[in-house]
Amino acid sequence: MSGSEAIEHKLNLTPQFDASGLIACIAVDAGTGEVLMLAYMNEEALRRSIETGQAWYWSRSRRELWRKGATSGQTQRIVEMRVDCDQDALLIKVEVGGDGRACHTGQRSCFYRKVTLGQGSRGRAALSMND
Amino acid sequence: MSGSEAIEHKLNLTPQFDASGLIACIAVDAGTGEVLMLAYMNEEALRRSIETGQAWYWSRSRRELWRKGATSGQTQRIVEMRVDCDQDALLIKVEVGGDGRACHTGQRSCFYRKVTLGQGSRGRAALSMND
Repeated sequence: MSGSEAIEHKLNLTPQFDASGLIACIAVDAGTGEVLMLAYMNEEALRRSIETGQAWYWSRSRRELWRKGATSGQTQRIVEMRVDCDQDALLIKVEVGGDGRACHTGQRSCFYRKVTLGQGSRGRAALSMND
Repeated sequence: MSGSEAIEHKLNLTPQFDASGLIACIAVDAGTGEVLMLAYMNEEALRRSIETGQAWYWSRSRRELWRKGATSGQTQRIVEMRVDCDQDALLIKVEVGGDGRACHTGQRSCFYRKVTLGQGSRGRAALSMND
């Protein structure tokens, strides 16, 4: 079994952090399945998330460990955590606290803009807000 | 308006590629909403995805541009593309071709293993397969 096959089949978590020591984590709403955000965890954030069941991330802009909702109240209780085939991405299903908005802009999801698809989009694609 | 506020509010796509020239892209099943995979696009992959409506990625391991499903048949037709607040992550809703499996391991989703949560998970968390 090659190294990558071992990672795909094994039943131990062996997270593959990138060169910056981070792993991407997709957060989805446990109730609706809506994708809320993509953030990053370092080893410590992942350890705390697993142990406490609350989402901890590493803020790349502020360069600090961060418990989601610590200031905003929009906490994320982890109902389920999954890891992908090559163990370099995580998926968490969360219950959002506070007013239920996961995005710091006040939107429920960070993905509040659609990208216009098609040939005419060459160069600068247009965005549109949520309907 | 600060630079980051402009990125959050503007209605032009201004993707924030990382130091490696990549942007993370979450692919979900357009029908069920299930998260299928997390992959990366470079500028060319993103341009082709927008123009053709087929998912193109950059393979970090093979270091090549890659149309999803080109060899496996498990193509991804993009029904909708979204970008997040700070424009450093994409979300695509896709119709999967072929046998409907998005993962190269033969699973429908790359996220086929759950991570055991809780205090007992200190050190090495256990994984379990899909039910």
